[in-house]
Amino acid sequence: MASDPVFHPWVAQAKAAPVVVAGGAGAWFWTREGERFLDLHAQLGNLHLGHQHPAVVAAVTHQAGRMCTLAPSFGAEVRERAARMILELAPPGARSVLFTTGGADAVEHALRMARCVTGRPKVLAAHRSYHGATEGAIGVTGDPRRWAVPGAGAGTVRFFGPYLYRSEFHATSEEQEGERALAHLRRLLELEGPHTVAAVIVEPVVGSNGVLVPPEGYLAGVRALCDEHGILLVADEVMTGFGRCGAWFACDLWGVRPDLLTFAKGVNSGYVPVGGVVVGERVAEHFAERPYPGGLTYSGHPLACASIVASLTVLEEDGLVDRAADLGERVVRPLLTELAGHLPVVGEVRGRGLAWALELVADRATRAPLAPYAAPGRVHPRMAEVLSACRARGVWPFVAANRVHLFPPLVITEDDLCTGIAAVGAALTLEDS
Amino acid sequence: MASDPVFHPWVAQAKAAPVVVAGGAGAWFWTREGERFLDLHAQLGNLHLGHQHPAVVAAVTHQAGRMCTLAPSFGAEVRERAARMILELAPPGARSVLFTTGGADAVEHALRMARCVTGRPKVLAAHRSYHGATEGAIGVTGDPRRWAVPGAGAGTVRFFGPYLYRSEFHATSEEQEGERALAHLRRLLELEGPHTVAAVIVEPVVGSNGVLVPPEGYLAGVRALCDEHGILLVADEVMTGFGRCGAWFACDLWGVRPDLLTFAKGVNSGYVPVGGVVVGERVAEHFAERPYPGGLTYSGHPLACASIVASLTVLEEDGLVDRAADLGERVVRPLLTELAGHLPVVGEVRGRGLAWALELVADRATRAPLAPYAAPGRVHPRMAEVLSACRARGVWPFVAANRVHLFPPLVITEDDLCTGIAAVGAALTLEDS
Ligand SMILES: Cc1ncc(COP(=O)(O)O)c(C=O)c1O
Ligand SMILES: Cc1ncc(COP(=O)(O)O)c(C=O)c1O
Repeated sequence: MASDPVFHPWVAQAKAAPVVVAGGAGAWFWTREGERFLDLHAQLGNLHLGHQHPAVVAAVTHQAGRMCTLAPSFGAEVRERAARMILELAPPGARSVLFTTGGADAVEHALRMARCVTGRPKVLAAHRSYHGATEGAIGVTGDPRRWAVPGAGAGTVRFFGPYLYRSEFHATSEEQEGERALAHLRRLLELEGPHTVAAVIVEPVVGSNGVLVPPEGYLAGVRALCDEHGILLVADEVMTGFGRCGAWFACDLWGVRPDLLTFAKGVNSGYVPVGGVVVGERVAEHFAERPYPGGLTYSGHPLACASIVASLTVLEEDGLVDRAADLGERVVRPLLTELAGHLPVVGEVRGRGLAWALELVADRATRAPLAPYAAPGRVHPRMAEVLSACRARGVWPFVAANRVHLFPPLVITEDDLCTGIAAVGAALTLEDS
Repeated sequence: MASDPVFHPWVAQAKAAPVVVAGGAGAWFWTREGERFLDLHAQLGNLHLGHQHPAVVAAVTHQAGRMCTLAPSFGAEVRERAARMILELAPPGARSVLFTTGGADAVEHALRMARCVTGRPKVLAAHRSYHGATEGAIGVTGDPRRWAVPGAGAGTVRFFGPYLYRSEFHATSEEQEGERALAHLRRLLELEGPHTVAAVIVEPVVGSNGVLVPPEGYLAGVRALCDEHGILLVADEVMTGFGRCGAWFACDLWGVRPDLLTFAKGVNSGYVPVGGVVVGERVAEHFAERPYPGGLTYSGHPLACASIVASLTVLEEDGLVDRAADLGERVVRPLLTELAGHLPVVGEVRGRGLAWALELVADRATRAPLAPYAAPGRVHPRMAEVLSACRARGVWPFVAANRVHLFPPLVITEDDLCTGIAAVGAALTLEDS
């Protein structure tokens, strides 16, 4: 549409033909034409509380009537309250919260802090990762979304994380994969000079690059390596934070304390744009007497903070984090495993809590992916077919490269979850034939 | 306060002692203790419609009840409507709007687009400018806020813009300053190789670096230079957009069409975090068939878009842009000029519409600044005195280096504007003695 007034991210404008959404409730949304879809990816993985959760809507409405906006240099009760709630939930050692407007700028500021604190230039970041699209964030990103920005990433050194199904280390067990991935990181640090490295940034469970859950011991091993060399560990929990993986933070799955933790999405289900950095002791101490060289007009936005307070309250009171852990193991894993059992197109099922991926293959023996690793805006025809088969069945998952991702809202009913997975299965059966 | 849960931008944490704001209405806000202040800087220059404008509050409330959030890949009526309204108001040639969450990421994406379209690496950016704090945005910023981020700015070449009061070009008239600044830019392009330059980024009226209004003909001259070499002109109107300078955009003051225009702040008074890029023809055509390599979770956020629609409607219906132009020339300029007449500490008065600066000097003859150009977080004691003298009189201006900035909400009453300026005058009288 030449006359589309909206410039669309990641796609060619002439090819953007967005489905117009008219509304939503819980795990469902519907189009202007009245078609209903089960939101199996919680929009972009952000909608923990589903569409239009009444408590969060009420909090936004209430705050809108009191104070919509306030510069970051002022204090505001709602801002402090939101920060305090995040600190209480965060892994131990958290000292304060820098609020941003989303995930990318949270990563930007976390990396800035790490470089300031250590005085070192380099950052180690993983292949198969996504950290956002601003210059600093895309610079540490390790997926095709960075290909078109060749200038970004000065100071970034990329490493391979654990991924047994396509092991870089020729490992044959999870344990071996974890050990070898750690050895690889240690080797890389030696070769780069550990004293030149400010931070290692990880998604503790890799999100949009495939739901890669690291083997037991891996994350603790990264933490130990960082400690050995005075390097800061940055956990990017934009996708995993606030319950997605069945723990408040993915770091908690292995009891690891990062020095800096970035968040967005689940903190308020994205009802108001917000993100932030949880600042640990070492960084907080550094900036106690030194000005922090960074900021933004909408840091600690009152409307966003009100939605955070409400969202975290719901997550806590409704026990949604434990529920995600339970649904993941009791419902999703068995259903997807069964599905994979009779669908050769499914090469692997991976996940934790309510974050799941199905990796599709053309050949189970060779593990040849059904679609290649590709630049954004280019969905492979086979995957496009999968997607439309899903939509035809009223479910809306996320598709990237050769994977189908299922990140439903944490409030999804067990029934919807089961029928949703069945619908994906049916769509894949078609593909399989 | 060691227990402050909020990490504060730009300052040393131990020194952050924010005044806690409890509410506001129009051009006023009040603290938890009940002290009332006239908001002479519209928070961070964003609050065009003042605190708690009922029409915008109503729009946010209404949208919150319908659809708080939606991924950018979907269509939404409110998103299209906001984009269309912006395109109607924008300088001619505007084709579509990429929404972001604030000013910095708008600049990030505008620069990315320029580099993609031209295939060239460099960007020319001005000394004495601010474009935001993420890696790409701080990299083109030309003020002390960039000092602590030495790694940023690969590909940035800095030039001097016109600033007659402290002319780099030894000019003695506005006309000469404009001509010489253009000659300087032309020379710089020659030396850098114009075919290596993707974009020139300017604040058409420099905002937080001193309200520098360029001489007649300067901006058109920059446009002509860009055209000569196939370089894109990026107008950063985050601070100046939507009426601040008495025109919808500062570019309109001289009838100049940028290729890309960044906005935030005034577009919705900051009631919901949002910013964006107005995309011109050349860029839109480039990305018609090529995917744009960038994006963000909260692009085109429905709540933000609803607040944009309401804000622009109020700005239009209440004629606030023309009113800003009128108040600026009829009220502010005469009052500040009179004030400068009897206060030797005021070296120069500059402004347009409702964007004004008083440049304070220790000596009018030598123009020695009252306070040095300094890193953020370090307010000079003399300027701190000015600020407290203002606050003691119930007015809250913005202070940077040796300047006092007055950017009141566009809805300020004429009475408040006059008494506010008188209060600043009284505060400066003290300083002058
Ligand atoms: C792990 C991770 N980090 C950062 C980001 C960037 O967040 P945003 O899109 O809000 O800039 C994302 C977005 O998907 C993410 O998944
Ligand atoms: C001209 C200009 N550009 C960009 C920005 C950055 O905007 P934000 O603080 O929303 O990132 C500002 C902020 O003051 C600005 O004045």
